[in-house]
Amino acid sequence: MLLHLSTWQEVETYLQQSQGIIFPIGSTEQHGPTGLIGTDAICAESLAHAVGESTSAMVAPTINVGMALHHTAFPGTISLRPSTMIQVVKEYIACLVKAGFTKFYFINGHGGNMATLKAAFSETYFDLADLHIPNADKVKCKVGNWFMCSSVYKLAKELYGDQEGSHATPSEVALTQYVYPESIKQATLSAEVAKGHRIYSAANFREKYPDGRMGSNPALATPEHGKQFYDAAVKELSNDYLKFLSEE
Amino acid sequence: MLLHLSTWQEVETYLQQSQGIIFPIGSTEQHGPTGLIGTDAICAESLAHAVGESTSAMVAPTINVGMALHHTAFPGTISLRPSTMIQVVKEYIACLVKAGFTKFYFINGHGGNMATLKAAFSETYFDLADLHIPNADKVKCKVGNWFMCSSVYKLAKELYGDQEGSHATPSEVALTQYVYPESIKQATLSAEVAKGHRIYSAANFREKYPDGRMGSNPALATPEHGKQFYDAAVKELSNDYLKFLSEE
Amino acid sequence: MLLHLSTWQEVETYLQQSQGIIFPIGSTEQHGPTGLIGTDAICAESLAHAVGESTSAMVAPTINVGMALHHTAFPGTISLRPSTMIQVVKEYIACLVKAGFTKFYFINGHGGNMATLKAAFSETYFDLADLHIPNADKVKCKVGNWFMCSSVYKLAKELYGDQEGSHATPSEVALTQYVYPESIKQATLSAEVAKGHRIYSAANFREKYPDGRMGSNPALATPEHGKQFYDAAVKELSNDYLKFLSEE
Amino acid sequence: MLLHLSTWQEVETYLQQSQGIIFPIGSTEQHGPTGLIGTDAICAESLAHAVGESTSAMVAPTINVGMALHHTAFPGTISLRPSTMIQVVKEYIACLVKAGFTKFYFINGHGGNMATLKAAFSETYFDLADLHIPNADKVKCKVGNWFMCSSVYKLAKELYGDQEGSHATPSEVALTQYVYPESIKQATLSAEVAKGHRIYSAANFREKYPDGRMGSNPALATPEHGKQFYDAAVKELSNDYLKFLSEE
Amino acid sequence: MLLHLSTWQEVETYLQQSQGIIFPIGSTEQHGPTGLIGTDAICAESLAHAVGESTSAMVAPTINVGMALHHTAFPGTISLRPSTMIQVVKEYIACLVKAGFTKFYFINGHGGNMATLKAAFSETYFDLADLHIPNADKVKCKVGNWFMCSSVYKLAKELYGDQEGSHATPSEVALTQYVYPESIKQATLSAEVAKGHRIYSAANFREKYPDGRMGSNPALATPEHGKQFYDAAVKELSNDYLKFLSEE
Amino acid sequence: MLLHLSTWQEVETYLQQSQGIIFPIGSTEQHGPTGLIGTDAICAESLAHAVGESTSAMVAPTINVGMALHHTAFPGTISLRPSTMIQVVKEYIACLVKAGFTKFYFINGHGGNMATLKAAFSETYFDLADLHIPNADKVKCKVGNWFMCSSVYKLAKELYGDQEGSHATPSEVALTQYVYPESIKQATLSAEVAKGHRIYSAANFREKYPDGRMGSNPALATPEHGKQFYDAAVKELSNDYLKFLSEE
Repeated sequence: MLLHLSTWQEVETYLQQSQGIIFPIGSTEQHGPTGLIGTDAICAESLAHAVGESTSAMVAPTINVGMALHHTAFPGTISLRPSTMIQVVKEYIACLVKAGFTKFYFINGHGGNMATLKAAFSETYFDLADLHIPNADKVKCKVGNWFMCSSVYKLAKELYGDQEGSHATPSEVALTQYVYPESIKQATLSAEVAKGHRIYSAANFREKYPDGRMGSNPALATPEHGKQFYDAAVKELSNDYLKFLSEE
Repeated sequence: MLLHLSTWQEVETYLQQSQGIIFPIGSTEQHGPTGLIGTDAICAESLAHAVGESTSAMVAPTINVGMALHHTAFPGTISLRPSTMIQVVKEYIACLVKAGFTKFYFINGHGGNMATLKAAFSETYFDLADLHIPNADKVKCKVGNWFMCSSVYKLAKELYGDQEGSHATPSEVALTQYVYPESIKQATLSAEVAKGHRIYSAANFREKYPDGRMGSNPALATPEHGKQFYDAAVKELSNDYLKFLSEE
Repeated sequence: MLLHLSTWQEVETYLQQSQGIIFPIGSTEQHGPTGLIGTDAICAESLAHAVGESTSAMVAPTINVGMALHHTAFPGTISLRPSTMIQVVKEYIACLVKAGFTKFYFINGHGGNMATLKAAFSETYFDLADLHIPNADKVKCKVGNWFMCSSVYKLAKELYGDQEGSHATPSEVALTQYVYPESIKQATLSAEVAKGHRIYSAANFREKYPDGRMGSNPALATPEHGKQFYDAAVKELSNDYLKFLSEE
Repeated sequence: MLLHLSTWQEVETYLQQSQGIIFPIGSTEQHGPTGLIGTDAICAESLAHAVGESTSAMVAPTINVGMALHHTAFPGTISLRPSTMIQVVKEYIACLVKAGFTKFYFINGHGGNMATLKAAFSETYFDLADLHIPNADKVKCKVGNWFMCSSVYKLAKELYGDQEGSHATPSEVALTQYVYPESIKQATLSAEVAKGHRIYSAANFREKYPDGRMGSNPALATPEHGKQFYDAAVKELSNDYLKFLSEE
Repeated sequence: MLLHLSTWQEVETYLQQSQGIIFPIGSTEQHGPTGLIGTDAICAESLAHAVGESTSAMVAPTINVGMALHHTAFPGTISLRPSTMIQVVKEYIACLVKAGFTKFYFINGHGGNMATLKAAFSETYFDLADLHIPNADKVKCKVGNWFMCSSVYKLAKELYGDQEGSHATPSEVALTQYVYPESIKQATLSAEVAKGHRIYSAANFREKYPDGRMGSNPALATPEHGKQFYDAAVKELSNDYLKFLSEE
Repeated sequence: MLLHLSTWQEVETYLQQSQGIIFPIGSTEQHGPTGLIGTDAICAESLAHAVGESTSAMVAPTINVGMALHHTAFPGTISLRPSTMIQVVKEYIACLVKAGFTKFYFINGHGGNMATLKAAFSETYFDLADLHIPNADKVKCKVGNWFMCSSVYKLAKELYGDQEGSHATPSEVALTQYVYPESIKQATLSAEVAKGHRIYSAANFREKYPDGRMGSNPALATPEHGKQFYDAAVKELSNDYLKFLSEE
């Protein structure tokens, strides 16, 4: 059930049976010469929609810009500063808590969002607790990182071994190829790919990772692999969401 | 050209020929008993994609949550506070200015965004001017409100007369029906519809407009009307974007 | 009744009969070669005092700096950033709500304040609602733009036609001449006056509107016209305030 | 020279001979049963205008709301939070620094503003230094508290002795009586007046100082005394401003 | 009783007998050629621990960075901006108020903290009052500046006369020598020492006070003097704390 | 070399040979019935001082309050909100970057700080890059979590197995016992200890973990173990710091 394709009365009805909602959260950032700038949002959104369907959960609109400051030296990247992202998450949740939602499950497509999301949840719990908002004390948030699902991780290892890398990975590229087969990109990838550098400023990142990849070989990706990742992640995330919902 | 379906190298190439980018901006808010919560974002996004195609413009990911605080007493509404929305817009623009973009055209689907967007643009110009960001002095932002296009306005008048109203209007509902024919909603609408009340707090809004409509009769909407609105708006907004781009 | 010339006990007494208060709000910004930098505040203040008298309303101290970032390339302009102005308005209102005021009527002298004021009201309603403040749910704010009163508009049309323009207008200059006859300025105005340019950054504004006027011929202004505008606006705004007060 | 009664071209001319500007800053807060809510702003403004005249200095519009949170339990008080007031002061100064002003002299009518003004100046120097603003490194700010002028202090001691107190003092009431003789208030003042309590929250303040006075007997004030205070303060503040201006 | 060396259960027990807590607050800033960068924090901490012991009060961890923006042109200085320091103080207090503390006594080692602390307390009282926090209305904060104790002031006058100066003073250096005898520094001090300049920006400060001292001769300091200052301050601050605690 | 025991001239000299600085960062939060509230700060500080000595590095004052919002339902806990902590870290770093420092190594004693620190570093790199601050582009920050050192982890496993738990662990308690042998606490610990609950709000945390421990048995700790942890961590962190410093 997609929030943006529902009416408010349908939401009211939904709330009588569940107080859970799923937020797809991605990023708008460079993903190497062949990866889509929307990769993380596309992955999160497609998986969230499927998880929503399999679990009868409400799915909120996709948060398509996240914390990608370290990618901003590459054109096309858009990022929030962490302080702002914390505020945004807090306000999204506050609106929905007032309506009766209490369980917030974020299906996340971007490793760079994890720290800020964690900080945002802490600040949300704390700030809501001091306001006049019923049920604020019941609010619980959880992140499901699709790329860290054990089934996904295992599959990536089998298919790509060390060439999975850690950014602009063949697994995420494969998933976008499955979702948007008409947007499969071709580009010559250098055989050598930078890896192992720590992440500091945006300028430093681009200097160290000149084509945007981090140790990955996205040329290995295929839409068929994408479907495998999709199926594995949907299954695992659906179970995780249901488990989260059932926590008293 | 959709930013989220492009690579950073494609963006780099694009910037050599144009510094313009289109942002669809909507809202996630109640739209009466038959209107979709995502109405404003759906309209903005579908039009922006078509305008992008007709003008060869880059289109950024949709800003699907806007300023809808007055709708927050209806479940499903998500809103940013104006201060936060100003900050978000400023950060989106700053990232893209660093990459070389200077003309920002917002295709807007929600009247409630207009004041905050205007404030955000003023603050963006001012704050960027004091930072170390090349081309910050060239930044220009403009809003194109599809529902205020003269052709759209005229068509709505012809088709619906006074029953167009000002929120959950048949014109916007028609446009979403054209875009998402599988999500056309049915609900009994009272013959009487509230109108003419000024907007204050969320609680007051719901009290005054109990089913969420403001003077509108969305039952008049049809997907065919939606196509007419779509065509009219795409044409008019495309011209407006090109004119904006050509301003020296 | 002027707040700054009252005692707190007089305010306490006033609150037993009315919960309304009028805020004059202007701007401190260039108004062309012959317009006073305080034009907008002077107009708002003089009208607000008269409206207060005619309606027995409490009038707060004038907010003499508003949102004028686009004028900051001209010396003498002082502006708040929109985010700050939102915060300021919110805090003013919060203090007075705690005392028992619930109806806030802003007599506004500056078009550039409108968007930010609107955003400020939305944020005020929302933020107050979550705090421990009695009557916060009853708060209502409204703007009365004197220059948009229909009687004022009609009079300006009659007296100046197209030469009214949109900034440093003869109507507002006339009103300041009526209020401060000793401060009528003389300067040579070029026959040609810039008009029709959209507003972007401060630097761009000054480039496009080199003497600060926007399509206006303030040389047409006279103190006698000023009195006419004054009388018309006081009457119309008084009625509007009383209507606002009487809303249940 | 009053900024609000000047044109931008007059300001431009002024800047060729002086980079100094005077800001009157007061407060909108209870001043006991007979003191005006605008007392601090009225005193600051009247003195600043006279100092401006005697020193040929530009005088900015009065900041009529300051830091008076501890008075907010009395109706009619309006206050900024210190964080907001810091931001406001910083933005006022930034606008004027861009125009060429570098010496900011605040004629202050409210003891409660002193700490926040001091904090604001520190933050202003620091924040401006990192931005692209010419002359930011030359900015200097100073506060002249009229009630702390040695001549004023001595006179108050002579006229009122211990009955001067520390809030709603006869000296400040006298000054407002001189400026607004038509607004001299009468009220029965209890012979006993609270004094010596430390200032904590607004509720605590009202509990400790039930009629708003702090150890003062404003019944002693006369307009003639007011003139004496006025003359003394104008002379001393004018000298102080000129000394400040002459600092290299 | 030191908070950092207590368990939460010991704090729970303590709260049954007292709701007071002492915060040592210093600064991390240059203190001339022979003064330690931590001087203000060292003084505040050592005194606070002794005061805590003599009054059986809980002592919180030392706030070792304060408001020292004007010293930031000297290497090693770390400072918060006043707005941030206000926020920090407010959050520290809010956490402890929730636990039951209501009396906050700051033993302060740095004159530059005074204005911002005062602002912070005002904002704390005001902001807490609107939240859902029991006992928020009972919160009281007070600063005890050790260097302003009358006994300390008198002793410094006797020992150093005019050579006490106002920054990097022999009295504070002496106190650090008593606390950290192994960190007594030697450096050639010019006979001439700058004094009497007002404080503006950090760059201006360093220009006016090139070695960081303000009119002081810290070469006069001895650890024995330090002990005298220590004993005097502990006694006077202990009395002041107990008096503060006993306020109803 | 401890910053607080140095003079600014010693810092100036240090900067000629190194641009690195170590920040101990802990937390002020409950650590179960026998753990000190300052545990995390004590561990971080003692290790940082030793690492500083072994690597000739400058060590900044300890950040003794971190992100511990989830512990605030236990008395004695003090925490910053993540947004505030980000701002604090950013300001500390900005001051030191202006002085010439570029490598910031945080020795961290609290898992709850990790997400916020990571967010803070991203925001610092980004914000500094747009300001007028030399060397801002060279800034690099890194966290060394002592409790995640492989030698520490291995030792804890050997000594305590599963009874190490994840909060109020015997390893951290042992380290504080080694540092503060006079503050070893005794309390009856229930044999059963809560574990495995996810962390949400403070109230929820206390409900799930009623005595504050998370799966740990701190009764196993001894000061001798503490020394072993200390030696292992100092060695491993020293190597890590030197490696960080040597990154070009």
